[in-house]
Amino acid sequence: MTADNDKKQQSHKKKMAKLKDNIDATIAAANTERGVGILLTGNGKGKSSSAFGMVMRALGYGYKVGVVQFIKGVQLSGEELYIRDKCPEVTFHQMGTGFTWDTQDRSGDIAAAETSWAIAEKMLQDESYHLVVLDELTYMLSFKYLDADKILNALRNRPESQSVVVTGRGGGTELIDWADTVSELKEIKHAYNSGVQARKGVDF
Amino acid sequence: MTADNDKKQQSHKKKMAKLKDNIDATIAAANTERGVGILLTGNGKGKSSSAFGMVMRALGYGYKVGVVQFIKGVQLSGEELYIRDKCPEVTFHQMGTGFTWDTQDRSGDIAAAETSWAIAEKMLQDESYHLVVLDELTYMLSFKYLDADKILNALRNRPESQSVVVTGRGGGTELIDWADTVSELKEIKHAYNSGVQARKGVDF
Repeated sequence: MTADNDKKQQSHKKKMAKLKDNIDATIAAANTERGVGILLTGNGKGKSSSAFGMVMRALGYGYKVGVVQFIKGVQLSGEELYIRDKCPEVTFHQMGTGFTWDTQDRSGDIAAAETSWAIAEKMLQDESYHLVVLDELTYMLSFKYLDADKILNALRNRPESQSVVVTGRGGGTELIDWADTVSELKEIKHAYNSGVQARKGVDF
Repeated sequence: MTADNDKKQQSHKKKMAKLKDNIDATIAAANTERGVGILLTGNGKGKSSSAFGMVMRALGYGYKVGVVQFIKGVQLSGEELYIRDKCPEVTFHQMGTGFTWDTQDRSGDIAAAETSWAIAEKMLQDESYHLVVLDELTYMLSFKYLDADKILNALRNRPESQSVVVTGRGGGTELIDWADTVSELKEIKHAYNSGVQARKGVDF
């Protein structure tokens, strides 16, 4: 090792030791152990896929998982194929009406939303679920298809050990207040806008 | 149905039909079919989990997937458990040194980064991989553990059908230029800062 490298190594070690002290102190300060509420919002790519990554995490530890997908379900998706085929232990429900611009039927959409919500609500009352994913739930609120108070109450009164992930653009201040962790996914750029098609096994 | 509801329904239908025309036109305009480069960056929660959600998507279609996790690998994670146990068909490598503030060893970190990169580079030359995840690669660039030009060249020269997801804070303008899709995950809030511990099966 040259003298210059040795110096770099020493200065690195010193900086990292200090950083470790700070990080250890922060970890020690976080001492409440309970399920968390997570909101993944914003217009960027990655909200639903992030929720399904957490499904994989929970399954890795053998935890029980429930998923309700609002809106989605007309076009086949990789996560649907995977969960139906490989994870029969996951409770999986899709509203299945597709996007509002496809159905063009407000009353039908509302009825489907209510049916899907009833399934979600049961999960939120069942402490055997370690993780519940409510994919694209925010749209049900912004379209006023579901009553916000009803949803917020169910989220707030869920079992203490249960974590919930809500995805979708928007969501409003009440959902943000409810959530312990909120990430806003900002679209910096998207392949779509350069004429590249949505990719099978990546985008859906 | 009341007259008011009927009116709402009609106005909804009209709005949605117009929206559908716009969306159909945008879809028709995106006609290039190829693998995409995705960068998930920012300080918010959800970058790695989003990458693993895409792994699930790709596996749903039976596509071949490779994952290299830079940094991670000392603490056990749900995604690691799941992939090692349930997805032996996924090529999975972890750098395994842990965080820089834990190793406090710059030379050792660089050697481990080079070894991990060699594995990633082979995936980027192998068109049988539909999806390659390079989890937390950005830190290897910001710490100058790996040569940025070498990495960018490999990303740019990968097979046309292959998609690549790179995660990690920062990443620099070259990675952003390379990527077709970039989402910045902004931390709006994090459970951690309210004293809530990272949750098993959700955060790791």
